[in-house]
Amino acid sequence: MAKFLIVGGVAGGATTAARLRRMDESAEIIMFERGEHISYANCGLPYYVGDVITERENLLLQTPESFKKRLNVDVRIKNEVVRIDRENKLVEINDLINNTSYTETFDKLIVSPGAEPIKPPIPGIKDQAIFTVRNVHDTDKIKTYINENKPKKAVVVGAGFIGLEMAENLHHLGMMVTIIEMAEQVMTPLDYEMAAVVHQHLKVKNVEFYLNDGVSQFKRETDHLEIQLQSGRKVDADMVILSIGVKPETKLIKDAGIELAPNGGIKVNEYLQTSDPNIYALGDAMAFPHPITGKYTNAYLAGPANKQARILANNLVLGHKQTYKGAIATAIAKVFDLTIGSTGLAEKVLKKEGISYVSNIIHSGSHSGYYPGAMPTTIKITFDPKTGKLYGAQIIGYLGVDKRIDLIATVLQKGGTIYDLQEIEHAYAPPYSSAKDPVNQAGFTAGNIIEGLVNIIHWDELLQSHAASNFILDVRTPEEFELGQIEDAVNIELDEIRNHLDEIPRDKKIIIYCGVGLRGYFAARILMQKGFTDVCNLSGGYKTYEHATC
Amino acid sequence: MAKFLIVGGVAGGATTAARLRRMDESAEIIMFERGEHISYANCGLPYYVGDVITERENLLLQTPESFKKRLNVDVRIKNEVVRIDRENKLVEINDLINNTSYTETFDKLIVSPGAEPIKPPIPGIKDQAIFTVRNVHDTDKIKTYINENKPKKAVVVGAGFIGLEMAENLHHLGMMVTIIEMAEQVMTPLDYEMAAVVHQHLKVKNVEFYLNDGVSQFKRETDHLEIQLQSGRKVDADMVILSIGVKPETKLIKDAGIELAPNGGIKVNEYLQTSDPNIYALGDAMAFPHPITGKYTNAYLAGPANKQARILANNLVLGHKQTYKGAIATAIAKVFDLTIGSTGLAEKVLKKEGISYVSNIIHSGSHSGYYPGAMPTTIKITFDPKTGKLYGAQIIGYLGVDKRIDLIATVLQKGGTIYDLQEIEHAYAPPYSSAKDPVNQAGFTAGNIIEGLVNIIHWDELLQSHAASNFILDVRTPEEFELGQIEDAVNIELDEIRNHLDEIPRDKKIIIYCGVGLRGYFAARILMQKGFTDVCNLSGGYKTYEHATC
Ligand SMILES: Cc1cc2nc3c(=O)[nH]c(=O)nc-3n(C[C@H](O)[C@H](O)[C@H](O)COP(=O)(O)OP(=O)(O)OC[C@H]3O[C@@H](n4cnc5c(N)ncnc54)[C@H](O)[C@@H]3O)c2cc1C
Ligand SMILES: Cc1cc2nc3c(=O)[nH]c(=O)nc-3n(C[C@H](O)[C@H](O)[C@H](O)COP(=O)(O)OP(=O)(O)OC[C@H]3O[C@@H](n4cnc5c(N)ncnc54)[C@H](O)[C@@H]3O)c2cc1C
Ligand SMILES: CC(C)(COP(=O)(O)OP(=O)(O)OC[C@H]1O[C@@H](n2cnc3c(N)ncnc32)[C@H](O)[C@@H]1OP(=O)(O)O)[C@@H](O)C(=O)NCCC(=O)NCCS
Ligand SMILES: CC(C)(COP(=O)(O)OP(=O)(O)OC[C@H]1O[C@@H](n2cnc3c(N)ncnc32)[C@H](O)[C@@H]1OP(=O)(O)O)[C@@H](O)C(=O)NCCC(=O)NCCS
Repeated sequence: MAKFLIVGGVAGGATTAARLRRMDESAEIIMFERGEHISYANCGLPYYVGDVITERENLLLQTPESFKKRLNVDVRIKNEVVRIDRENKLVEINDLINNTSYTETFDKLIVSPGAEPIKPPIPGIKDQAIFTVRNVHDTDKIKTYINENKPKKAVVVGAGFIGLEMAENLHHLGMMVTIIEMAEQVMTPLDYEMAAVVHQHLKVKNVEFYLNDGVSQFKRETDHLEIQLQSGRKVDADMVILSIGVKPETKLIKDAGIELAPNGGIKVNEYLQTSDPNIYALGDAMAFPHPITGKYTNAYLAGPANKQARILANNLVLGHKQTYKGAIATAIAKVFDLTIGSTGLAEKVLKKEGISYVSNIIHSGSHSGYYPGAMPTTIKITFDPKTGKLYGAQIIGYLGVDKRIDLIATVLQKGGTIYDLQEIEHAYAPPYSSAKDPVNQAGFTAGNIIEGLVNIIHWDELLQSHAASNFILDVRTPEEFELGQIEDAVNIELDEIRNHLDEIPRDKKIIIYCGVGLRGYFAARILMQKGFTDVCNLSGGYKTYEHATC
Repeated sequence: MAKFLIVGGVAGGATTAARLRRMDESAEIIMFERGEHISYANCGLPYYVGDVITERENLLLQTPESFKKRLNVDVRIKNEVVRIDRENKLVEINDLINNTSYTETFDKLIVSPGAEPIKPPIPGIKDQAIFTVRNVHDTDKIKTYINENKPKKAVVVGAGFIGLEMAENLHHLGMMVTIIEMAEQVMTPLDYEMAAVVHQHLKVKNVEFYLNDGVSQFKRETDHLEIQLQSGRKVDADMVILSIGVKPETKLIKDAGIELAPNGGIKVNEYLQTSDPNIYALGDAMAFPHPITGKYTNAYLAGPANKQARILANNLVLGHKQTYKGAIATAIAKVFDLTIGSTGLAEKVLKKEGISYVSNIIHSGSHSGYYPGAMPTTIKITFDPKTGKLYGAQIIGYLGVDKRIDLIATVLQKGGTIYDLQEIEHAYAPPYSSAKDPVNQAGFTAGNIIEGLVNIIHWDELLQSHAASNFILDVRTPEEFELGQIEDAVNIELDEIRNHLDEIPRDKKIIIYCGVGLRGYFAARILMQKGFTDVCNLSGGYKTYEHATC
C-alpha cells in the first residue's frame, strides 16, 4: 500500500489527492494544510470581497470532512510541514492546533505550497489597514475591516490581474479607488498600447491611477493612511490592498537541499519530479521550462495547477507515463465592463528575449455587425516573421474575448502558426461570430504581412519617424478625417484612390492609415501594385494610434 | 491581364472577387448575380423577418456600386449565367433587365451558385402563403405578407437550423408556431438524446411540434391553409415556412459536362478545381471529401464558403499553392434561450458509416459554480475507442457554447484526440470558466473510458437491458432519489458506499448512476477496486436519461 503525503490543500494539493484516490482506492493519502481551509476558490476571493459572491461557504469547495467522506483522504488542517528528511523519507509537521510537532513517513511526497504575496520592507507596511489577498483568511480580515470601518477611499498598490479585480470589487462596494503602479502601464502581460485601452476604461469608471510611481512610505494618520509616493505625490487611503506580485513558497524545499530553478521556483522534470526522485512539486511554487523560451517559469495560474495535479497523480500510480508540457500563461480578467485575455509572449518579452517576431493589431466586432449587440474587440498577435509560428496574443473587448483567447491559446500550445488561425472552422451564426471570425482575420492579416502583400508600421515607429521623408495618407472619409487625424496627414478616401494616384508622391515613404487598418490595407494593395515601392499601413489604424498616444 | 468570371455574388462569389482584386489590381473581374442583390447576409434573414434586425439595408453588406468603387469589380446583377461553353472558354448570360442574352469569355471561371430550398411536389405547395428563405427577395415577400395579412398561426415544415431560427423569429413576432418534422427529432446534426433537450425547451416556449410526421397536402381554405399530415392529423396555418433542406445548384455545371460528386455536388480537387481545369467551384454547390469519412459532402455553411473563397483567389493568382482541407461542419444556432453547437460526426452518422466509436455525455457549468450566473452545459463527444481521435461534438447550453464548440472543432480539425482536450490551456477566471474547463472535463472523462478506469452504459442500452441480471445503483442523496429515480434502482449515497459494500451483489452487473455522471464515476472507481467485476456508470446520469426518455 503506497503512502502519499501532500503539502498544501488547495488547487494543486487537493486535486492531486482527489485523482490519487480515484486511481488507487487503497493508498494511504495524507494532506497537510497549514491554514484553516482546503479546496477554496482563491480566484473567487476578490468577488467575495465585492459582494458579487455573497455566500462565503460557496468559496469552500470541500471541507476536511467532505474530503474524508467522499475521497477517504486524511486531511490535516492547521498542520504545517516544516521539514523534509529526505534520507529517512519523512516530514516533520507542526500541529498548530495543539502546538505539538510530529513526523510522518512517505513513499512519495507531493508539494503544492503555492506562493505568497510580496511585502517589501516599505516603512509602515505593517499597518492594520494594509492587506494582501491570498486565502480565505485574508478576505475574512478585509471584510471585517470594511464592515467595521466603512472605508471610503481605497488604494490598490500593483495593477496586475488581482489588483485590478480588487479595484473593481472595492469600487463596486462604493469606494473611491486609486491604483498605484510602478510600471508605465497596468497589467504587465499586455503591451503598452493594449494596456492603454484599459487605462481609458479605468478613467471612464472614475478609477484614479498613478503609473511610473511606487510607494515610499505608508504613514499612519489618526483616521487614515497617507501614502507617500516616490514621485513626492501623496495619496490618502482608508485601506490599502497590496498586490505587487507573489513569490513561490520554496523554503521547505530549499532547506531540504532540493534544487531550485534559476528563477527561484522548484525545479521539476517533465514528470513533475524534483531533484529528489521521491518528491514531486506542482502549482505556483513549481518552475518548468516555458514552451517557447525554454526558460524556467512559474505559472501562477489555477488551470495549470489543476492539470498538473492530474498528470502527477497518474504518474504516481501508473509510473512515469504522462509528460507535462509547460504552461503558456493563458490568463483572463474581467476589469469592469472589459474582458482582457492574454496567452504566450507579449511583444516586449520577445524583444527582451531577442526572439525575432512580428506583431500586428486588428479591431473587429464580437459578432456580425448586422446583428444587434456586436461589440468592438481588439486582437494583438505576435508571430515568427518567416514561419508564422504563433508566439502570443492579447485580446481586449466586451464579448467573446474568452473564446478567442482560448482558440489562439489552443493553436499556440500545439506550436501552431498564423495559418492555423486562418483555417479554424469556427461555429458561425450571427449572434456568435462572423463568417470570418476575428481570429481568422488575425490569421489573414498576419499572413499578408509574412507574404509581403503589405508592410506595416506601428504607432510607436510612426511617432519616431521623420516627418519630412514620409507622406502620411489618411484613407478614411473626409468626415472621419475632420474629427481628428495624424499630424501632416493628407486625406484621400479609399474609394477615390484609384483616381488620385498622381497626388501621391513616388519619392517618399507612403504611410497609410484608416480607422482600424482594413481600408489602409486595401489602399496599400492598390498603391503597391501601381508601382509605389515604399508603402506601409499603420497596424491597428487610427484607433490604436489614438489609444496609445492620448 | 487575367480575366475572371464569377457566377454568384454572395458568400463564395463576392468574397472570391474581393480577394482576387486585392491580389491582382489589374485583372478583369466580372461577377454575375441573377438576383437583385449581392453580398447579402443570408444568415441574418431569419432575424430580419423577426424584427431583431430592424434595418433592411444592414443585410446588404455591399452593393454593386460600392463593390465597383472599392474593388473595381464589374458587378452585373439580374444577369444569369445560363450556359458554359468550355471549348471556347465563354459563358452565355441572360440579362434579365433587358431580356437579352450575350456572352463573355474567360481565362478562369469561378462558380459559387449556392443551393436552393427543396420544394417537393406536395399538393398545394404553390400556395402564396407558403414560403422558403434563401435570399433577400424571399424575406421581402415574407415581410410583405406578414404586414398585409397579420398572420396569427405559422407552421414551419422542417426543423433544421434555419427552420428553428424561423420558428423563433415568427414566435418573436407574436405568432403561434407549429413545427412539423419527418424525423423523430429536431436538428439532425444532433443525436436523439441531445435533441431531446431542445424538444423540452420548445415546449417551455409554447412552440408546438409534431415529429415523425410529414405533410401530405396543403389545402387552401378561404382565410387559411389546412395542412394535412401523413399521420392523418390536420394543422391550420395562416402562413407556412418550408425549410426541409436545400439542394446544390448544379444545373449549369452538369449541363456543361463537368463531373459531379456521388452526392450530387460539384466535385473539386484540393485546389477547388472542377474536372475542367479552367473552372473552379466553391460554396454550397461544391462537394469535397469529408475529412473523417472521406465521402464527398457539401458544407452548406457560410464560414467554409468564405474561407474557400480566399484560398481559391490565392491559387488563381499565385498558382496552385494552397490546399483546401474540407469542412467538418461546425455549426451553431440560437434557439430561443438555448445555444446549440455541433461539429464533426454525430453518433448516428458513425454508426451508419460503420466507424467504431465511443460516445460520452457530460453536464457542467458554463463557469465556476461559486460565481453568479453559471448555466448548465451539456457536451457529447464521439471518439475512437483506441486512439481517442475525436470524431464529433454536440454542445447545448445557454452561455459559452460557442467557445466550447470552437475549441473542440479546432482540435478535431487537426486530427486531434481527447488527450488534446485534456491539455487545452484555456483562460480561467471565475466569470468565464472553471480551473478545469468543461472541454477539459470532456477529455478527462473520455480518457477514463478509453483507459478502462470506468465502463459506461448509455440511456438507450439501459432501457433495453434485462432488469433481472442488473443491479441498478443510485448513488445520489436520498433527497434526490425521492424526487425521481430509475425503475428498480437501489439508493446508496456515494459518501456512504465504502460502508455498504456488502449490500451490493457480486453476481450481477452493477449499473451505477447519479445526477450527471460524476458521482457515479467516483462510485464505479470504488467498486471496481473493491473487486466488483462488472460495473458501469450511466453516461450523462439521470439528467440525460430523463431528457431522453420522458
Ligand atoms: C486573489 C486571487 C485570485 C486569483 N485568480 C485567478 C484566476 O482568476 N485565474 C487563475 O488561473 N488563477 C488565479 N489565481 C491563482 C491561483 O489561485 C493559483 O495559481 C493556484 O491556487 C495555485 O495552486 P497551488 O496549489 O500552487 O497553491 P494554493 O492554491 O495557494 O495552495 C497552497 C496551499 O499550501 C499551503 N501551504 C504552503 N506551505 C505549506 C506547508 N509547509 N505546510 C502545509 N501547508 C502549506 C498554503 O497554506 C496554501 O493553502 C488567483 C489567486 C489569488 C490569490
Ligand atoms: C436563412 C439562412 C440562414 C443561414 N444561416 C447560416 C448560419 O447561421 N451560419 C452559416 O454558416 N451558414 C448559414 N447559412 C448558409 C450560408 O448562407 C451559405 O452556406 C452561404 O451563403 C453559401 O454561399 P454560396 O456562395 O455557395 O451561395 P449563396 O450565398 O447562396 O450565393 C449564391 C448566389 O448565386 C446566385 N446564382 C446561382 N446561380 C446563378 C447563375 N447561374 N447566374 C448568376 N447567379 C447565380 C444566386 O442567386 C445566389 O445569390 C444560412 C443560409 C440561409 C438561407
Ligand atoms: C474541489 C477539488 C478537490 C476537486 O478536485 P477533482 O475531484 O479532481 O475535480 P472535479 O470536481 O472537477 O472533478 C473532476 C473529475 O470528475 C470527472 N468528471 C467530471 N464530470 C464528469 C461527468 N459528467 N461524468 C463523469 N465524470 C466526470 C473528471 O473526469 C475528473 O475525474 P478524473 O480526474 O478522475 O478524470 C479541487 O478542484 C479543488 O480543491 N479545487 C479548489 C482549489 C482551486 O482549484 N483553486 C483555484 C481555482 S479557484
Ligand atoms: C462583403 C464581402 C464582399 C467582404 O469580403 P472581404 O473583403 O473578403 O471580407 P472582409 O470584409 O471580412 O475583409 C477581409 C479582409 O480584410 C483584411 N482585414 C480584416 N481586418 C483587418 C485589419 N484590421 N487590418 C488590415 N486588414 C484587415 C483581411 O486580411 C482580409 O483581407 P485578405 O482576404 O486580403 O487577407 C463578402 O464577405 C460578402 O459578400 N459577404 C456577404 C455574404 C456572406 O458571406 N453571406 C453569408 C454570411 S451571412
